[in-house]
Amino acid sequence: MVNTLAAAVVSLAEILQASPPADWRFLDPEDTVYLELPSGRVVIELASTYSPKAAAAVRGLVREGYFDGAAVIRSQDNYVVQWGRGEDDAKAKAIASKKLAPEFFRAMDPKLPFTPLAYPDTYAPEVGFSGGFPVARDPKKKQTWLVHCYGSVGVGRDNAADSGNGSELYAVIGQSPRGLDRNITVVGRVVQGIEKLSVIPRGPGPMGFYEKPSEWTPIRSAKLAADVAPAQRLNLEALKTESATFKTVVETRATRKEEWFHEPVGRIGVCNVPLPVRLKP
Amino acid sequence: MVNTLAAAVVSLAEILQASPPADWRFLDPEDTVYLELPSGRVVIELASTYSPKAAAAVRGLVREGYFDGAAVIRSQDNYVVQWGRGEDDAKAKAIASKKLAPEFFRAMDPKLPFTPLAYPDTYAPEVGFSGGFPVARDPKKKQTWLVHCYGSVGVGRDNAADSGNGSELYAVIGQSPRGLDRNITVVGRVVQGIEKLSVIPRGPGPMGFYEKPSEWTPIRSAKLAADVAPAQRLNLEALKTESATFKTVVETRATRKEEWFHEPVGRIGVCNVPLPVRLKP
Repeated sequence: MVNTLAAAVVSLAEILQASPPADWRFLDPEDTVYLELPSGRVVIELASTYSPKAAAAVRGLVREGYFDGAAVIRSQDNYVVQWGRGEDDAKAKAIASKKLAPEFFRAMDPKLPFTPLAYPDTYAPEVGFSGGFPVARDPKKKQTWLVHCYGSVGVGRDNAADSGNGSELYAVIGQSPRGLDRNITVVGRVVQGIEKLSVIPRGPGPMGFYEKPSEWTPIRSAKLAADVAPAQRLNLEALKTESATFKTVVETRATRKEEWFHEPVGRIGVCNVPLPVRLKP
Repeated sequence: MVNTLAAAVVSLAEILQASPPADWRFLDPEDTVYLELPSGRVVIELASTYSPKAAAAVRGLVREGYFDGAAVIRSQDNYVVQWGRGEDDAKAKAIASKKLAPEFFRAMDPKLPFTPLAYPDTYAPEVGFSGGFPVARDPKKKQTWLVHCYGSVGVGRDNAADSGNGSELYAVIGQSPRGLDRNITVVGRVVQGIEKLSVIPRGPGPMGFYEKPSEWTPIRSAKLAADVAPAQRLNLEALKTESATFKTVVETRATRKEEWFHEPVGRIGVCNVPLPVRLKP
């Protein structure tokens, strides 16, 4: 019995190491953004399939250098860090009133991949994964949407649904704020370097905003991988959430066979499933 | 319609301000631990009702000065920070083999308060709050337990269930790792200052451990509030999770009426409900 159990125990690293190359996909350089902070690089994958307009807007802003010299202007514990240019900035003022159609959810479409997660979710009738992102669905409303998990990147907005134009972005650094789902456009997720954002000292003002620009963390530059010399790109690949390997990842993380676990759990939440990204071996 | 809606919108701060004093409870000084970091004070409330043995063990270790000069030895992104004395330390070696009966869950008891949360949970048949802590229950197994949310404090252990003796503690700083529920003893939660732990730079080693003691964040001292001169105590009070005010907090955070929200959500997860703690006004 002990041997049987031991034989069944494989670590996440071992599962990934044993995976066929076809279970991985290269990040599209047109959907990959490098944020350069003083502490290093943060890599974001844009969710072009679910949020094409927002992804295009962010891509355009990155290309025109909007985020070069921007800053992290907010860090709220157990919630989000947010970056942009600050409201007094000339470039920010120039774009402040620009509108962008919301992409809080989209129509369900049989052509969209969907790997369901079999366990109940507090916030949605169905949850799972699509093209590398955690998603939810409501078959009655025929809606599907990107859910807010740790590392999700969204488009900050004011009260009007179309007021988020991509010039202020946030990343989740705490408990998944799922109440934001379908209320704001998720435009991607941090696939590497989220810890460079999550350790930024919290802002002392309301909602974690800093009180003085001197407290901001500078963003030296933001570049699309497509616009960076190949030698400076990271050859990142993501595990396909439609692959057999990913299915094994979910199963082994839901039902724990490691000796440490006395209660095997037998379930897992959509924001607790790891979404592996690695440098191509 | 707009006026009706506006009239119904009250902020969390307004709800708390309008609350009667009887809806709050003082933190018991015997259950309140002050961790003094270089960046300031972290306050932990021990969960004496659910984990009496672990709470007593931690209380004893604090009283004997075990954590004075201890350190944060691990910081793993989206998971936990952990503190103790490091395995080479003489005091740590002296206690390393000490056993403590696990308190991963306890028997359900009608005498325990329980404020249920009406929404489905991924991990447990029932979730809610008891005496200020987020909890879960399994009526079939007649078990109840403290759940792992952001800020939960647990008793680190090795593979043996009784190997966690309170000399290494962790606090959750990411997505609620609910797979730990019923696998490890939750002994309390951070009620103030979690952001002093969550911004500690992540450890470069496996599981976020630091590679050198020089990377540790020192814990100058740990004291029970009961052992601190009254003038140096924080007069903290927690909103009773059995109170009418807390019910209003849950309702207003589950169904959002603020103008910003276009989708009112209508539900909330057990780890998304705020558990207000304040200085007595």
